[in-house]
Amino acid sequence: MSELKGACIFGQSGGPTSVINASAYGVIDTALKNPNITRVLGAEHGIKGVLNDRLFDMGQEDPKELELLKNTPSSALGSCRYKMADPDVDETDYKRILEIFKKYDVRYFFYNGGNDSMDTCNKISKYMQKVGYECRVMGVPKTIDNDLYGTDHCPGFGSAAKYIATSCMEVYQDARVYDTGMVCVMEIMGRHAGWLAGAAAVATAYGSGPDLVYLPEVDFDMDQFLADVERVYKEKGNCFVAVSEGIHYADGSFVSEAKTSATDGFGHAQLGGLEVFLTEIVKARLGVKVRGIELSLLQRCGAHLASETDIEEACMAGKAAVENAVNGITDKMVGFERDIQDGRYVCRTKLLNLTDVANTEKKVPREWINAEGNNVERPFVDYVLPLIQGEPVLPREDSLPRFARLKKVLAK
Amino acid sequence: MSELKGACIFGQSGGPTSVINASAYGVIDTALKNPNITRVLGAEHGIKGVLNDRLFDMGQEDPKELELLKNTPSSALGSCRYKMADPDVDETDYKRILEIFKKYDVRYFFYNGGNDSMDTCNKISKYMQKVGYECRVMGVPKTIDNDLYGTDHCPGFGSAAKYIATSCMEVYQDARVYDTGMVCVMEIMGRHAGWLAGAAAVATAYGSGPDLVYLPEVDFDMDQFLADVERVYKEKGNCFVAVSEGIHYADGSFVSEAKTSATDGFGHAQLGGLEVFLTEIVKARLGVKVRGIELSLLQRCGAHLASETDIEEACMAGKAAVENAVNGITDKMVGFERDIQDGRYVCRTKLLNLTDVANTEKKVPREWINAEGNNVERPFVDYVLPLIQGEPVLPREDSLPRFARLKKVLAK
Repeated sequence: MSELKGACIFGQSGGPTSVINASAYGVIDTALKNPNITRVLGAEHGIKGVLNDRLFDMGQEDPKELELLKNTPSSALGSCRYKMADPDVDETDYKRILEIFKKYDVRYFFYNGGNDSMDTCNKISKYMQKVGYECRVMGVPKTIDNDLYGTDHCPGFGSAAKYIATSCMEVYQDARVYDTGMVCVMEIMGRHAGWLAGAAAVATAYGSGPDLVYLPEVDFDMDQFLADVERVYKEKGNCFVAVSEGIHYADGSFVSEAKTSATDGFGHAQLGGLEVFLTEIVKARLGVKVRGIELSLLQRCGAHLASETDIEEACMAGKAAVENAVNGITDKMVGFERDIQDGRYVCRTKLLNLTDVANTEKKVPREWINAEGNNVERPFVDYVLPLIQGEPVLPREDSLPRFARLKKVLAK
Repeated sequence: MSELKGACIFGQSGGPTSVINASAYGVIDTALKNPNITRVLGAEHGIKGVLNDRLFDMGQEDPKELELLKNTPSSALGSCRYKMADPDVDETDYKRILEIFKKYDVRYFFYNGGNDSMDTCNKISKYMQKVGYECRVMGVPKTIDNDLYGTDHCPGFGSAAKYIATSCMEVYQDARVYDTGMVCVMEIMGRHAGWLAGAAAVATAYGSGPDLVYLPEVDFDMDQFLADVERVYKEKGNCFVAVSEGIHYADGSFVSEAKTSATDGFGHAQLGGLEVFLTEIVKARLGVKVRGIELSLLQRCGAHLASETDIEEACMAGKAAVENAVNGITDKMVGFERDIQDGRYVCRTKLLNLTDVANTEKKVPREWINAEGNNVERPFVDYVLPLIQGEPVLPREDSLPRFARLKKVLAK
């Protein structure tokens, strides 16, 4: 292991979560205290901030405000969705990044995000290796979608799952108060993997959750869906359905995008989300009262319902990235390993090759979904439960959240 | 004051809230302990449970489960939306109610709801007086809409307002993470009064809330709305709008129902909520990225974000109804009076005539709304703040809500 001194850059990328700033705190706080890291720079809007030379000097922030990041949802430094070109095709961005790295003597680069962000991280890592610029590059995982390869779970998922399960339990109470029945359809995020929609079933395991849960891991069949809803409605007088936004027909087309097809029975372009479409179909075919609810951004920024386990692990992932890098590791993403010790859930960090992680998606195992494809099985619930445990002590001001207020002083 | 012994019936009516069960607890617990009340009956689905002779014997419930009602959202006994006929036109229901009252020797009737429910309560009260059946009838207020006449505020509003303000603060963080701008439109409940939509502005007072707030108290002008949004977007690069579901044009037609008009630029019937419609118009006219969020049922059942002040006051209202009735009062609704003592907010109960309360709506004063009609003024925020204070200690099971589980044993 060679000692390497220099500045570090930290960036946040992709869709935010309730705890991505907890990882930011893990990275920034650990880096600020490490003697080998001479300066901690926060990139505005992820890699775009590097390209645009918009870097904040994190050392100028009030430590108390930095600590508030642990309970501040969304990406405090700003995020981006920026696809890096293949460096063999277009080197422009990479040359610019190298220029900035040299300008600030950046020797550590930490990037916090999901699949696409790990692709960015991987490309930068490989480029720096190729041109022989010594810089340790580490990925910090983040995604409510929980679909990163090689890690037991991802920071951000536990809190979103807890938000979804709790909201389902509450909506369940509300959606059956009248003696007139209703079908309630809740749309949950997750374009390609059904981890989040499956979390709705955790509510059912505690007595107040959806009757039916549809994940993108199973091809969606509209007739079967309507038959399922009708059966439950006739049996219970109500039906509560959770659907992943990513459900798709057998031909791969998203149900949300196939809305103009004959299937909808209206024959015109339809606006609004998947839940709007499904509730309208249910209403038209079954003639029952319907209510659609889309959890939208709420599920990924609901920090007031965050899982303390998730916050601590998100922070730990950031810390591990810095510690490993300082110890000579590069070109890796921090991942999680689950263990059970004396019957208790324990989470440890591990390291994954960026190349393996970039752009690979982890789906819900088929055996955790029931044979009918309209709910999840108990092992799924058991997998999720440890991740949603613990209530954070939330900083408040007049009973409202007190989020971090950063100065964001541009580095000179 | 004459002493009156007999059974009591308690019923829940109208749309549920996060704390309507706290009022139920206040009524049931106080009634169970009062020697003049021989039996406490809970009506299934409000007045329908009386008409159908579906009454639960609340004395058979486990006291610990009853106490969990304080943190259980929605109407635990079931609710109804049932409009009672004018007794001068059709006496059928009233005769049936009298029959049930006599069957169980009911001498106390407590009804928990909003405007329409107070109308039911008032009609029953007047009918019992007319036929000379001695029964003390008391209304217990409830509505997230906060539009009951004569009371400073209504149980249920504070918790919904807190849910809305907190969610706005979180969404504000999320909806501006990218360097590409976005217009976010949040649809909030409130058909005729803008108390709930106004609560979104409390978030703004704490640094992270909507830029524009539209209430039904001011006629909606689509051109002005688009000009407002465009101005804010150009100035800030983002725009966050909160709208009440009840916004309407100058001719009184709801914007949500006028969606097929030429205004929408599409010329076809549109599905989905008001936010879907407004975001589509913004997208079409201003060509910017949009996101619509409807808080839907979440805002009225989000007990995990309830205001402790609201829970305590809801409970107090139920208790006051029973105590006053036992002390000889009848034909009243319990209301709230706000006082400031040594600079601290204090809430006391008062009594209002059911006739005055029934079917009268209290709107947001025009002077609490700004001249432009696109936001609320500071006095509105100061009015709301005391009502959202305090965090309840939430009963949990594996970090998920532990709601009351009632046996609901039918009375013989």
